[in-house]
Amino acid sequence: MPDVDVCVVGAGFAGLTAALRLTQAGHSVAVLEARDRIGGRTLTEQRDDGSYLDHGGTWVGPGQDRVYALMNEFGVPAFKQFVDGEAMMVVDGRQYRYSGTIPWSMNPLVSVNLGAAFLELRRMCRAVPVHAPWAAPKADKWDRTTLAQWLDRTVPMRQARQLLGMALAGTYTSAPSEISMLFVVAQLASAGGPDFVLGVQNGAEDARPVGGMGAVYRAVAAAVAGDIHLEQPVRSIRQDADGVTVRSDGSSVRTKRVIVAVPLAIASHIDYEPMLPTDRSFLHQRMPTGAVLKTHVIYDEPFWRDDGLTGQSAAPGTAASVTLDACTHEGRPGVLCVVAEGPHARQLSRMSGADRRSAVLEALTARFGRKAGAPVDYTEQNWTVERYSGGGMISHAPPGVLTEFGHALREPCGRIHWAGTESADVMMGFVDGAVRSGERAAREAIAGLSGTLPAAPPLAMA
Amino acid sequence: MPDVDVCVVGAGFAGLTAALRLTQAGHSVAVLEARDRIGGRTLTEQRDDGSYLDHGGTWVGPGQDRVYALMNEFGVPAFKQFVDGEAMMVVDGRQYRYSGTIPWSMNPLVSVNLGAAFLELRRMCRAVPVHAPWAAPKADKWDRTTLAQWLDRTVPMRQARQLLGMALAGTYTSAPSEISMLFVVAQLASAGGPDFVLGVQNGAEDARPVGGMGAVYRAVAAAVAGDIHLEQPVRSIRQDADGVTVRSDGSSVRTKRVIVAVPLAIASHIDYEPMLPTDRSFLHQRMPTGAVLKTHVIYDEPFWRDDGLTGQSAAPGTAASVTLDACTHEGRPGVLCVVAEGPHARQLSRMSGADRRSAVLEALTARFGRKAGAPVDYTEQNWTVERYSGGGMISHAPPGVLTEFGHALREPCGRIHWAGTESADVMMGFVDGAVRSGERAAREAIAGLSGTLPAAPPLAMA
Repeated sequence: MPDVDVCVVGAGFAGLTAALRLTQAGHSVAVLEARDRIGGRTLTEQRDDGSYLDHGGTWVGPGQDRVYALMNEFGVPAFKQFVDGEAMMVVDGRQYRYSGTIPWSMNPLVSVNLGAAFLELRRMCRAVPVHAPWAAPKADKWDRTTLAQWLDRTVPMRQARQLLGMALAGTYTSAPSEISMLFVVAQLASAGGPDFVLGVQNGAEDARPVGGMGAVYRAVAAAVAGDIHLEQPVRSIRQDADGVTVRSDGSSVRTKRVIVAVPLAIASHIDYEPMLPTDRSFLHQRMPTGAVLKTHVIYDEPFWRDDGLTGQSAAPGTAASVTLDACTHEGRPGVLCVVAEGPHARQLSRMSGADRRSAVLEALTARFGRKAGAPVDYTEQNWTVERYSGGGMISHAPPGVLTEFGHALREPCGRIHWAGTESADVMMGFVDGAVRSGERAAREAIAGLSGTLPAAPPLAMA
Repeated sequence: MPDVDVCVVGAGFAGLTAALRLTQAGHSVAVLEARDRIGGRTLTEQRDDGSYLDHGGTWVGPGQDRVYALMNEFGVPAFKQFVDGEAMMVVDGRQYRYSGTIPWSMNPLVSVNLGAAFLELRRMCRAVPVHAPWAAPKADKWDRTTLAQWLDRTVPMRQARQLLGMALAGTYTSAPSEISMLFVVAQLASAGGPDFVLGVQNGAEDARPVGGMGAVYRAVAAAVAGDIHLEQPVRSIRQDADGVTVRSDGSSVRTKRVIVAVPLAIASHIDYEPMLPTDRSFLHQRMPTGAVLKTHVIYDEPFWRDDGLTGQSAAPGTAASVTLDACTHEGRPGVLCVVAEGPHARQLSRMSGADRRSAVLEALTARFGRKAGAPVDYTEQNWTVERYSGGGMISHAPPGVLTEFGHALREPCGRIHWAGTESADVMMGFVDGAVRSGERAAREAIAGLSGTLPAAPPLAMA
């Protein structure tokens, strides 16, 4: 491969955006991607009937200005998530229909519990500086507390606790006992608070790109001057006095700067020479990914809309614990997206495919009626076993990690710059955060190329 | 390399013991070791004056029957850790001399605090089944609690909390906020309780092999029939219907069974084909190692003994937070071992070598008098930056990990068996646990070779 100014590792939104901005600034780039496709933790399937399914990251919302900027740049419009109806909550076998984020129609005490928890989360978010959550006044206290404990203390009623736990831990696709409360608050704060992250309309699931995320990442990739090499898992990154050599199985690139834009657990598989500073290599050991299984169930039409339902539902403990309307901008065919996260996703993964399908369709039928049991198609995407995601959707910080090692999330290591949504201070965990991280890493690399960053900040001591 | 019955990855105590037991059972083995030496997380330096320094794992104690069995097998005697004097505790600048595990001579309230905490730890240990700590009646509760929180609640006095935190978190070489209380109790219980783990005499630092750990691991290695290949970091393990291919950078071994005997964070760097079951690969992401810096300061003689001191001291917040007498069985030269762990070790690592040495010698002089400032030699071993340890000393489980993924610590994955002290149910975290894990993995592999284990238990689903 020819020498380049910057080598980008990973062709998800972070890496592709970085490569685009470098191209636009006149720099040569090479992108090395381990998979046989681009898109990273987003993946749009284009179907014969003209529809598209987003198997990974899907939505955009207000305040996600950088992914919207990218969409505008390439002429990709957005369409609104369908919200013209009621959502559904199933608790202890009983169904409740409601509008808005909190199901006030349910047991009023449950709703009061949820409302109080939201107030508390909003208050906590205001106390967190998004660029340095570890500097929050109560950072030490929150970082020694798990989300599970916070739920135990803040949400006395079991049903409310279960619902909020599913909503919050769901994002992190791991058990609430694994997750630092400081990380939860930092992630919520990075997106403006719990109302955005847990909301649909005007929230994190407000709209989608027409054509799916693939319409965006394909356009970005096409605008990158320089090759995007697929099936090139990077094995080693060797820095020396003059530059960097990046090696995959069969080839190598000589470059001046590297942007690593893969999940932290995947970045840990790369052999770095010299070794990374301790706090960065320890961070690689300490931000695991979770389990997520995303199923699309396709019908001739979105029959639930006729019943006054949005298709959005939450039913803890069932085989279809979370559902969402996943129709395209044309509204046909009818697509329900069923998301299983964390321990629930691991449990479903242990079933045979046929048993899992039966269980999911049975749960959907109980919720949406007989039509739900007779789909025209059914597809699964199990991110948990994606070798080059290390799991899905995002990495979380267990207790103690942000206060001890969080500062290393973005600090360049010599000629290596770090991207990926986990390194974003705004909209962390979203596609927008990935885009922002790619743009920030590109700015750093450009500064490095022009000599306004030190050539080689300190690396590990021997 | 020739085909073998079993390929062992890692030549620490776990791997070498496994290879020994396989040899003795008549099986052919090949050991692949990433470093340029054997010993893993133990490392004995043989010095020109005939003395020896243990830079890694050092002690043996009552109940550690399997490492003692190995020592007996190869005729390596033990000698007692020097305890004929008083230990020292330095709190807020004041020195207290004491005997036993708890410094009753100090502020009596502090000692009462510590005594009560010990009682509580003993009680918790009795409620934990060592082979399955996740099945303890209160496992869920303890696994959502960090050690830092438990200390906050159980030990009201700051000085007592600081001392116990240092003693407990020290073993795990990470901040108390990172560590699950269930893991702490499981580790203590695996060794019979806190009195053993935190004790010297009759405890975890009761005795040492004459000649150091190296006298044992060199003897074991010499008795292994089959080659021990150094500087062969294993990159991939590919299982197929007939066997396994284990590849390092330059060569490969074809084998029937594999024993992986490296720390979990290092096992995660290997490419497995097919992928490991989710719970095992997630465990690899979730048990990080910590930071530890072990310094030996060598004097003509152990002058502290003449002052009625054992050399054992604890002084939170100083550059020499923990010291121990590290003389050989001959008692000459005088050797003090200074151990820094967790955040303190990372902080010391950021200083220059010269500054660190000055700070350590200054702290020792304040504690042991002027002679401590004039050593004849001074050596450091920073395990934190050992590429093939991923840090030191042992891996810990953050909250939520044991209850969700602990079952995967020992479960074979097809033809792969897991060793390493973290997989031991007895004496986990000690050299003895490593030996036990190697013997257990060897038994599994032998059962597999004779067909009494299923040929290929389920792997990851696609």
